[in-house]
Amino acid sequence: MANVAAAPRRARAEFLADLISAGLLIPSGVDGAYGRGGTFEAVRAAVDAFVTRRSLNVRPERMAFPPVLPRRQLERIGYLSSFPHLAGTIFSFEGDEAEAAELERRVGAGEDWGGLQRQTDLVLVPAACYPVYPAVAARGPLPVGGLTVDLGGSYVFRNEPSCDPARWQMFHQREMIRLGAPDEVAGWRDAWAQRAVEIVGELGLEAAVDVATDPFFGRSGRLLARSQRSQSLKLELAVWISGDEPTAVASFNYHREHFSSVFDLREAGGEQAHTACVGFGLERVALALFSRHGLDPARWPADVTALLLP
Amino acid sequence: MANVAAAPRRARAEFLADLISAGLLIPSGVDGAYGRGGTFEAVRAAVDAFVTRRSLNVRPERMAFPPVLPRRQLERIGYLSSFPHLAGTIFSFEGDEAEAAELERRVGAGEDWGGLQRQTDLVLVPAACYPVYPAVAARGPLPVGGLTVDLGGSYVFRNEPSCDPARWQMFHQREMIRLGAPDEVAGWRDAWAQRAVEIVGELGLEAAVDVATDPFFGRSGRLLARSQRSQSLKLELAVWISGDEPTAVASFNYHREHFSSVFDLREAGGEQAHTACVGFGLERVALALFSRHGLDPARWPADVTALLLP
Repeated sequence: MANVAAAPRRARAEFLADLISAGLLIPSGVDGAYGRGGTFEAVRAAVDAFVTRRSLNVRPERMAFPPVLPRRQLERIGYLSSFPHLAGTIFSFEGDEAEAAELERRVGAGEDWGGLQRQTDLVLVPAACYPVYPAVAARGPLPVGGLTVDLGGSYVFRNEPSCDPARWQMFHQREMIRLGAPDEVAGWRDAWAQRAVEIVGELGLEAAVDVATDPFFGRSGRLLARSQRSQSLKLELAVWISGDEPTAVASFNYHREHFSSVFDLREAGGEQAHTACVGFGLERVALALFSRHGLDPARWPADVTALLLP
Repeated sequence: MANVAAAPRRARAEFLADLISAGLLIPSGVDGAYGRGGTFEAVRAAVDAFVTRRSLNVRPERMAFPPVLPRRQLERIGYLSSFPHLAGTIFSFEGDEAEAAELERRVGAGEDWGGLQRQTDLVLVPAACYPVYPAVAARGPLPVGGLTVDLGGSYVFRNEPSCDPARWQMFHQREMIRLGAPDEVAGWRDAWAQRAVEIVGELGLEAAVDVATDPFFGRSGRLLARSQRSQSLKLELAVWISGDEPTAVASFNYHREHFSSVFDLREAGGEQAHTACVGFGLERVALALFSRHGLDPARWPADVTALLLP
């Protein structure tokens, strides 16, 4: 770990204001929707590449998906039952010229025009791994030994406007997925959680892995969270960024047969496969670095910059 | 230009089927929404980097924006008047537990659940340059000599499901923007159009630049298109990919004072600035390369791969 004194702890609003005045973040006018200045973006890309260099994955298959997903897949996965409040769905205009004139009038008059929009076949991707399961299932059974997929940095959307500088509505997950035999998949998930502590530790961040839960909706969600916690299905890596509590910067999720039962993912021998995914929140790791080492990377500890920009 | 015989011309459906069976594209079940296999993604990234190496820009400022934009900005820019049919707006659920139960019931029963979604403050970015203008305007007047912004590869969304393998609903624009004095901005736009012919020519693609128009909506849109064409505001670089007609793989747009009048962009001396943008459709350039040189980059002409993977 880098041998430097910790930066003073800052309140969230103060840290956000500092990030903006340093040109690291560019406010859009909507909470949680930020542009990124060149310095922030260079650090984000460097973290992405550093995770790749420290990867545990053996011969991963590279795939990439846009941040849109067929609505039908979100319906099948059950996301709308567990997280109806976080989903973003895409609506568009499908009217004629008269309706277009009415749309233009409402926009000009500052009136609500949502009623002139229709739900399309696409939604926003809320978790980078979702497109992988149907894509892999369409090929038939997994190869012997299972499959590891590396998605690189992928945009995801969550409907949760927030003033917390670390809670964005659209951000990059550095995402990897393992599909195969239960023991093997669970072991991969656990090994990545340990590796993640080492990765951020090399960058000078003190981090801890703990059992966590997803933000399930409503009262029935509390039962889901209790079940998830009791089985240790979700682990999170937490680092202090700003405010009073540490922030999760990576998560390690063992889905058991959840996605396999929806998409009929099978091992080479025909058994139902298990799946797990690992995602680093790239913007959050970058924010943690700016919080820990200061807003100017030129003044970061030499061992940290040597690792990030080799 | 690479000295190779042209690949045979293919119909669009045939080319799309070939791309999928080669693992270059991954179908999602919705037209125009594709995942990308590792080989395709490597070529896309290589094209991105090659455009950067051949860039004309002098000391560009790097920025990056997510593919979401405040709805208010799309309203102010006039996009909903000119292209109401292409815009994608983001809706989400904001109900209570009873409404969440009804949402879950409708999803399970296969009923329409769009009525339980409300329009949010965010829309999808339809043109990568849009977030730049308010961000730059918020700083005050431009520096002396104006400003060049490089966004790298940025996702944009267009609501236009299509079976054309080159028409995607979400794709990357390799986007650059120039803001400053009218002559300087127009000259930059024209110089990039010429440079783009050279860039794709080095990669073995025969291309032509021509005056073009945007797909404005409806009858009044025809007037807008005529005005745009008569002033040569939009140039496009067209390359043959599949089907009977060439496909635009880059565009060069001189906006005159359009964005400056909305966001009050001024030169250092106080004059109203002009703006222009240049965007390469990265997936389309990659598709043109696969169409021209074949589906296996390992068998592409050595001079092309040497340029792309130096």
